[in-house]
Amino acid sequence: MSIQESATARPAGRPRSEKAEKAIIEATLDLIAAGMGVSELTIEAIAAKAGVGKTTIYRRWSNKEDLIVDALATLKAPMPELSGTSVRDDLISLVEAMRKESGEKRGRCVMNIAMSEADRYPRLMERFLKRAVVPRREAMRAVIERGVATGELRPDLDVDMGMALISGAMLWHTKWGPAGALPLDLAQRVVDAALAGMAP
Amino acid sequence: MSIQESATARPAGRPRSEKAEKAIIEATLDLIAAGMGVSELTIEAIAAKAGVGKTTIYRRWSNKEDLIVDALATLKAPMPELSGTSVRDDLISLVEAMRKESGEKRGRCVMNIAMSEADRYPRLMERFLKRAVVPRREAMRAVIERGVATGELRPDLDVDMGMALISGAMLWHTKWGPAGALPLDLAQRVVDAALAGMAP
Repeated sequence: MSIQESATARPAGRPRSEKAEKAIIEATLDLIAAGMGVSELTIEAIAAKAGVGKTTIYRRWSNKEDLIVDALATLKAPMPELSGTSVRDDLISLVEAMRKESGEKRGRCVMNIAMSEADRYPRLMERFLKRAVVPRREAMRAVIERGVATGELRPDLDVDMGMALISGAMLWHTKWGPAGALPLDLAQRVVDAALAGMAP
Repeated sequence: MSIQESATARPAGRPRSEKAEKAIIEATLDLIAAGMGVSELTIEAIAAKAGVGKTTIYRRWSNKEDLIVDALATLKAPMPELSGTSVRDDLISLVEAMRKESGEKRGRCVMNIAMSEADRYPRLMERFLKRAVVPRREAMRAVIERGVATGELRPDLDVDMGMALISGAMLWHTKWGPAGALPLDLAQRVVDAALAGMAP
């Protein structure tokens, strides 16, 4: 019996489980977006919203915090493929992923609410950072360090400060920049503005 | 009868009123810091925490939102005096005010919680921005525009992007930078890193 036949014959197999998982993740994000926050969120509320039993949730996540970390991680844009040839191009790819992510209204709202609770749930936030933020940050660090090594960037460059200029300028546009959607060429403009002071 | 005599004779005058006002502001901030957020906060809870009657609050603020805007505004560092001579020095003064503000743990916590509700209370946030954020942002814009006019900065500089580099790099250090207190020389380093690409 092929895998496909199996799926047809037993709809209770993986596909249904994946569908339930997606519904649970979406329910979690919807409840946070509706203002429930981490403290008030319960497995009961998530199960009701997702239309599944609590057991279905507990089979996959042993507690609320694990589920929240997984749900928040789905809001991050996928890590872009980096060409590894031009430092400028790779930085633009990384910043462009940030720009696209910021355009997602629900994602931004959920992230704002979750982040506001960082002080109250340090362990949860630490795990989320490790899972979803650190890999992206380290990718940018690696590109900048490569630029210093190849001479595309200043040999005496403060790498942390380079990251602060690029990611910070993007963050500023998301939070405080001119109203409306982020311009399509923003990633390129941010990178070029920052590189003006980072090139040799 | 001099004003001082009046104050001594009638302790119910301005000094007591100022003391009550301070207690009300502090109670509001404490309750937000404790996780109450804008939605759950009530005048009753604030009055109880501050040890005053509700009437004392209503005599000064006609509604909860007015009080919250005033309370949040007290968390901002005072606007620094700018020398008006060197663009670099003035930018450092402005960024140094941001650095000091970020060192205040309770202030940061309250601001995080309040900001996480921005999507749900757009009018309140708009008033807070207008009252406490816009004047600081416009001060930085004026310094950068002066630099372009005097030739201390590039004539073709994108002023918004310059603000994004400087404020963003500072914001990045507050949110994502190396753990621990912000270094004392951070304002200077941020400004010099940004100016490297903004000078002619």
